Amino acid sequence: MLAIPVLTAALALVLCLVMGFLVARSHLTKTSADPRGGPTRPWVDQDLQDDSEAMSKEHEDDEWDDSDKGENVTYVPYSPERLPEEQMVRASKRFYASMNQRRSVRFISPEPVPWEVIENVVRTAGTAPSGAHTEPWTFVAVSDPDMKHRIRLIVEEEEEVNYRQRMGAKWVKDLAAFRTNWIKEYLDVAPYLILIFKQTYGILPDNKKRTHYYNEISVSIACGILLAALQNVGLVTVTSTPLNCGPKLRKLLQRPANEKLLLLLPVGYPAKDATVPDLKRKPLHDILLRI
Amino acid sequence: MLAIPVLTAALALVLCLVMGFLVARSHLTKTSADPRGGPTRPWVDQDLQDDSEAMSKEHEDDEWDDSDKGENVTYVPYSPERLPEEQMVRASKRFYASMNQRRSVRFISPEPVPWEVIENVVRTAGTAPSGAHTEPWTFVAVSDPDMKHRIRLIVEEEEEVNYRQRMGAKWVKDLAAFRTNWIKEYLDVAPYLILIFKQTYGILPDNKKRTHYYNEISVSIACGILLAALQNVGLVTVTSTPLNCGPKLRKLLQRPANEKLLLLLPVGYPAKDATVPDLKRKPLHDILLRI
Repeated sequence: MLAIPVLTAALALVLCLVMGFLVARSHLTKTSADPRGGPTRPWVDQDLQDDSEAMSKEHEDDEWDDSDKGENVTYVPYSPERLPEEQMVRASKRFYASMNQRRSVRFISPEPVPWEVIENVVRTAGTAPSGAHTEPWTFVAVSDPDMKHRIRLIVEEEEEVNYRQRMGAKWVKDLAAFRTNWIKEYLDVAPYLILIFKQTYGILPDNKKRTHYYNEISVSIACGILLAALQNVGLVTVTSTPLNCGPKLRKLLQRPANEKLLLLLPVGYPAKDATVPDLKRKPLHDILLRI
Repeated sequence: MLAIPVLTAALALVLCLVMGFLVARSHLTKTSADPRGGPTRPWVDQDLQDDSEAMSKEHEDDEWDDSDKGENVTYVPYSPERLPEEQMVRASKRFYASMNQRRSVRFISPEPVPWEVIENVVRTAGTAPSGAHTEPWTFVAVSDPDMKHRIRLIVEEEEEVNYRQRMGAKWVKDLAAFRTNWIKEYLDVAPYLILIFKQTYGILPDNKKRTHYYNEISVSIACGILLAALQNVGLVTVTSTPLNCGPKLRKLLQRPANEKLLLLLPVGYPAKDATVPDLKRKPLHDILLRI
């Protein structure tokens, strides 16, 4: 008779411990399924995620362009031409003046651009440093009208979804006023669409994956140099990160699973009547500190 | 008498449910403290995390430099100077030739560099596009010898930890051979150390946080333009992402909590006897596709 309460308690104990761990596991999977709390579609998160960020960085190097340091890397002398001070100052002013003319331009002329120039600006982007000299970038230059239009349809479809979500109830009222927000004519008009993919990992000869650490930073730096190269020849673009389109565009362009879309740049001459938003840049003292 | 087993069971039930939720909570915090499965020190992860990545991107714009599109943004005409085709091609070749001379250089001369040049290269970096024109960058140029040395001590301490972990047992054998891997003399020698911080969020007038979407991509693009500007005046650097040093360096330089260290660039003239690893770059057909 005394055994009954003990048994009941023991039974309840076991039962509840099991419950407890079930609750624990459910919480656990919930958080790890969506580690960045990003958009609700897992397949998008999966494809947009920078795999290198999802891995430990304990085994990488902090200095770039030096994958096999400490092993048998050979060093060569480096003695570039040196400018006198006054010339340096002048050169730094000239380059600033040129880059400061750059604006994000949405009104692009359909006039053709020499392919040789596209080759040279991408070559220039390819001189960027990268984590462990992995050069984890792929530039896809699209000039085929049909392919450009299919890219436009994918981008505009997602954009419309985003704007509708953003507008919510207000939407039905003034739809027309906002259509311009997701209509991207320049995707048909620009002579070239340059889609830049980051390679989140590489494939080694033994078919093992090699993580490309800092692949997003590396490819973004290359894009900075690409923007400078475009500005240097008088071509314009608008930096865009097509929202949730990465997977569809990757499949459309038949890029492998280790490549994730980072940026889409429509490239061409500015249209005759091009306008840009009247934006100012921060003064130097807001972005530069001297210690 | 019958009440006793029931009461015991009920008591056990309550007790175990509490236990269950405690377990659940502990799991929960454990996973969210380390969302990317990165290094095991939560405070490091916390500080290294790109907050913008941790938030939904449903409400941001895909086109940059256009924060208030659809609202009352005014547009101004944009008609930059246009180059004839042959001149474009020549300019694109010249710029490529110049940027292709850039290498990551660890042997930096102690000779002083004109401050005006540092100002101009940072001004140039500040012309980069950014998500919603947030300009989420802070450049800290350190020339103070004591501060440079304190930065060096922080970086080398972390580097040594990383290398010891990497070497494991092999370590004790040939420690000397690898010391060069974490000794960073250039942090004392270079006339300037430029530390680049990404502002993961901004503070609005009403003290609310404003997420800076794509802040890491934006600041990395600005760094690409900075590297181009340095190369343009004949200065050298080595791109580095000090591993796990972000929080300590941020505190040393008294940067606010919304700023995370992205890159550290020692800047100066190359040393007379400078050498660079004998690395090659990928051929164009490996990085550029035409469709």
